[in-house]
Amino acid sequence: MKLAFLGIGQMGMGMAARLVQAGLDVCVYNRTIEKCDPLKAMGAHVAATPAEAVADAGIVFTMLSDDAALLATMGRDTVKKMPSGAIHVSMSTISATLAEQMAHSHAKQGRAWLACPVFGRPDAAAAGLLRLCISGNREHKEKVKPYLSPMGEVWDFGESPSGANVVKLAGNFMIGSIVELLSEAFSLVENSGVDRREFSRFISSTMFAAPVVQTYSQLILDGNFDNAGFTARLAAKDLGLVRDAARQSLTPMPIAAIVEDRFLSAIARGWGEKDMSVISQAQRRDAGLTED
Amino acid sequence: MKLAFLGIGQMGMGMAARLVQAGLDVCVYNRTIEKCDPLKAMGAHVAATPAEAVADAGIVFTMLSDDAALLATMGRDTVKKMPSGAIHVSMSTISATLAEQMAHSHAKQGRAWLACPVFGRPDAAAAGLLRLCISGNREHKEKVKPYLSPMGEVWDFGESPSGANVVKLAGNFMIGSIVELLSEAFSLVENSGVDRREFSRFISSTMFAAPVVQTYSQLILDGNFDNAGFTARLAAKDLGLVRDAARQSLTPMPIAAIVEDRFLSAIARGWGEKDMSVISQAQRRDAGLTED
Amino acid sequence: MKLAFLGIGQMGMGMAARLVQAGLDVCVYNRTIEKCDPLKAMGAHVAATPAEAVADAGIVFTMLSDDAALLATMGRDTVKKMPSGAIHVSMSTISATLAEQMAHSHAKQGRAWLACPVFGRPDAAAAGLLRLCISGNREHKEKVKPYLSPMGEVWDFGESPSGANVVKLAGNFMIGSIVELLSEAFSLVENSGVDRREFSRFISSTMFAAPVVQTYSQLILDGNFDNAGFTARLAAKDLGLVRDAARQSLTPMPIAAIVEDRFLSAIARGWGEKDMSVISQAQRRDAGLTED
Amino acid sequence: MKLAFLGIGQMGMGMAARLVQAGLDVCVYNRTIEKCDPLKAMGAHVAATPAEAVADAGIVFTMLSDDAALLATMGRDTVKKMPSGAIHVSMSTISATLAEQMAHSHAKQGRAWLACPVFGRPDAAAAGLLRLCISGNREHKEKVKPYLSPMGEVWDFGESPSGANVVKLAGNFMIGSIVELLSEAFSLVENSGVDRREFSRFISSTMFAAPVVQTYSQLILDGNFDNAGFTARLAAKDLGLVRDAARQSLTPMPIAAIVEDRFLSAIARGWGEKDMSVISQAQRRDAGLTED
Repeated sequence: MKLAFLGIGQMGMGMAARLVQAGLDVCVYNRTIEKCDPLKAMGAHVAATPAEAVADAGIVFTMLSDDAALLATMGRDTVKKMPSGAIHVSMSTISATLAEQMAHSHAKQGRAWLACPVFGRPDAAAAGLLRLCISGNREHKEKVKPYLSPMGEVWDFGESPSGANVVKLAGNFMIGSIVELLSEAFSLVENSGVDRREFSRFISSTMFAAPVVQTYSQLILDGNFDNAGFTARLAAKDLGLVRDAARQSLTPMPIAAIVEDRFLSAIARGWGEKDMSVISQAQRRDAGLTED
Repeated sequence: MKLAFLGIGQMGMGMAARLVQAGLDVCVYNRTIEKCDPLKAMGAHVAATPAEAVADAGIVFTMLSDDAALLATMGRDTVKKMPSGAIHVSMSTISATLAEQMAHSHAKQGRAWLACPVFGRPDAAAAGLLRLCISGNREHKEKVKPYLSPMGEVWDFGESPSGANVVKLAGNFMIGSIVELLSEAFSLVENSGVDRREFSRFISSTMFAAPVVQTYSQLILDGNFDNAGFTARLAAKDLGLVRDAARQSLTPMPIAAIVEDRFLSAIARGWGEKDMSVISQAQRRDAGLTED
Repeated sequence: MKLAFLGIGQMGMGMAARLVQAGLDVCVYNRTIEKCDPLKAMGAHVAATPAEAVADAGIVFTMLSDDAALLATMGRDTVKKMPSGAIHVSMSTISATLAEQMAHSHAKQGRAWLACPVFGRPDAAAAGLLRLCISGNREHKEKVKPYLSPMGEVWDFGESPSGANVVKLAGNFMIGSIVELLSEAFSLVENSGVDRREFSRFISSTMFAAPVVQTYSQLILDGNFDNAGFTARLAAKDLGLVRDAARQSLTPMPIAAIVEDRFLSAIARGWGEKDMSVISQAQRRDAGLTED
Repeated sequence: MKLAFLGIGQMGMGMAARLVQAGLDVCVYNRTIEKCDPLKAMGAHVAATPAEAVADAGIVFTMLSDDAALLATMGRDTVKKMPSGAIHVSMSTISATLAEQMAHSHAKQGRAWLACPVFGRPDAAAAGLLRLCISGNREHKEKVKPYLSPMGEVWDFGESPSGANVVKLAGNFMIGSIVELLSEAFSLVENSGVDRREFSRFISSTMFAAPVVQTYSQLILDGNFDNAGFTARLAAKDLGLVRDAARQSLTPMPIAAIVEDRFLSAIARGWGEKDMSVISQAQRRDAGLTED
């Protein structure tokens, strides 16, 4: 079976490479075509347009930056080019609303939609250690699962065409909130004369010994936000999607609102391209711990 | 060296028992004296008054319910009965303000103060598996540490007489906030058609694989709040102390305010004696997931 | 000059009637055409389609329920039917984003756009006592102002095509927030043994002697939310637009988030069609003042 | 009848002067005795100690800075010096908890307590234009009312010994919240290209035409916070009392928490002695409108 992979950014590069390295027949597409060169060298085909990439593909993976990019890349004309019965596996972080719309419009054209966003940073993508959250039609999921395993571990969230997208948003909400939570706790102990590094070492190795707590504690303590693993601008976008999903589903989420505001403020202060953990810096200013 | 242990509640019982079982000479006191019977059977002395308990004791441990109980039990007259140079090791969750006052007034009377609050539930206390957070004078800490090890693992937070108290409050803030965080995320996915148990299983075994997340996810999902490990009323008291410490140290903590309000509302609704995880129920009502 | 007025709802009815009563030549349109009957009886023309209504009109007023309704009614085909140089005066509460898009697309087609949302309830509309907030091109504003005066008082907010829309949203934010503010204050005094009616009488006739405070205090105290002047569902939509504008303009607005969540919760509890002041009821439940 | 007035600060000066000017027999006391000179010149007696001031006084007014000052000034020994049956009229902004305690301890000593905090700035005090909020025993209130009228307008809030104190706190909560509300709305319109002065002029003369809105809009727009009418530090103290009353009465107040945090942050940033409207500056920094 021929596979198509659209969107060769920091994440997509590692994911597509895993598929090629697994010996699968992959055709890749990226708006800036040069980014596909390393994959070509590994044996991938490179398409000049989305339509060319999806033609004859049994499964089409997309890993694009946002709702607008997905809409632009997988317009009706491109979807028409997919073979009848082909499955579109959408791996980007997108809104639940768009997922529902795409599923609906694909179905009308006789194509299938699966939501399959991922957790993990670029290094995990390259190592095939992502967490893939999937939801949608049971048979379609069974068909694509063998092709997902080179990219990471698959978690199944039922049959809703947007369920896995909401799982991704809920997870990103929790990650963003942990940064704010740690910032508040660190400022409290520091303002009270306790070494926040000691506090961090304590919680990170006992009650809160979780990867997310350890990673973000370190980023906050290091205080070097220039080398962004995930930018404040992208986090603002994701928290916006979280609040949109909360609005759609009538779910009050006060902590999500606080965290979205932190990311908006980060961009307003000119920190949009810094690592998302930079919001700890805004908390420190509120607490008088750094100069305004 | 003679030890005194004041406050034989759910936690104090296990802690004092560990000391007795380690072969130490312990005199215990509790307002309701009958609670001391099991310890007497193990070989502890039982005192009828705090003053009797602390007389001749080199180290006095207190594990009392709140600021008021500590003030009532360790008044000036009782402290006078402590041998000159004796060390008071305060293990309760109390305010940073009271810790500072006690340290100051002890010093004027020639007695020593160490802050040493603990993390862990009654079963951990009985098993000697608590986390003990200590702060205060270095020499005093060295003197008491051998007597702390039967109760659990010791973490040192410097020389401030209230530093460890703030660590305890910051930790309890994080625990309470995790309950709210999970509640919001669970309601979002449930309102979007995803099984919240699947979501919980996912985050608890990946990014958020921490004891606190696992414990409270389970409590929220079980939805049985009657068998309280730690009541909403006590959690409200602790979050009140957190916000007080934030006020004293000029540290804005928006998430702490949200969580304090949740616990106040729990008591106002008549849920004060239920487990603290009952605040998830208030979030579910806000989200239309249970009948008002 | 021929005028067109599209959208004959509770508000539009009164506004269009004022224009007809002023002796102006008005052609009206509404999706449910029967609603236009009273205006026809007064002397208005009635059009069967938007395109028919705007043909030959020098000024086109729209008063529609939301972004979607405006887009559906004033699509490209309808706009084409407007005479070259005609001015579209948009009086609905819509997003700043849509205002910018419409202004841009009108300009490309050689038609003009003015933002002119209004403050006031249906009775004020019928009496010509609305506040009209206008923004956009100076010359176009001068041209339409004489036709606005029968509807109320005009306030000018500069030349941005969406400025007046943001003023409307900021005003609605303040009104919604006042309801929450009063709810919190009322519950505090009531829970402390003070008659909240006395408190309301005091603030409403001294420091806070403003129409909005007086109106909403009364609605909250009466506690009869069934006869909705403005529904919780519409208020949720408006607060959503406020938060969207805050997101677009990078403006953290913590109070707006709290108030949006209150309205979402109101709908989730089944109170969507009640008066927006019903959110005071959610505050009272949080405070233990009514049965859950 | 002899009157005593304790606490000759910015407010107390004007209030005591009004009593003296009304021809009443007033004995004044202030810790820094020189502050009493202008009143002496007007004909007041000056006492060297609180005990001396209250001896033989039928009514004792206190206008002190906070709970601690009231406790220090009106200790048991001073209260004993009041004639049996004398009435203490407490006009400071104090906690509801202290009011209850004082009322209780006065009663045990055969003296009476009335809560009577005031609204208004120093100029209103000097002009006899304060709003006096009174609560307590009905007969006692009747007895003191004639002596209150020179200071302003009396509003009666029932018979609770702390009811009027909560009214004062609820009022100050609303004032502080209005500053935050205006700040958010102003930043939203400014970030969207609208002149915030025009927006302020609009709301202040229409829906929100209330003295508090007009006063604080002007202070925010002027942006000169150095000439403090009421400092951020005092506002932080008051919002702390609001949240304490909310805690005592089990009343969740999310907006009060946001506003308390703003004032804490103002002090942490070194703005404690600036006018309370300075919190608008923190909002502007969050919104990227001034340099950090």
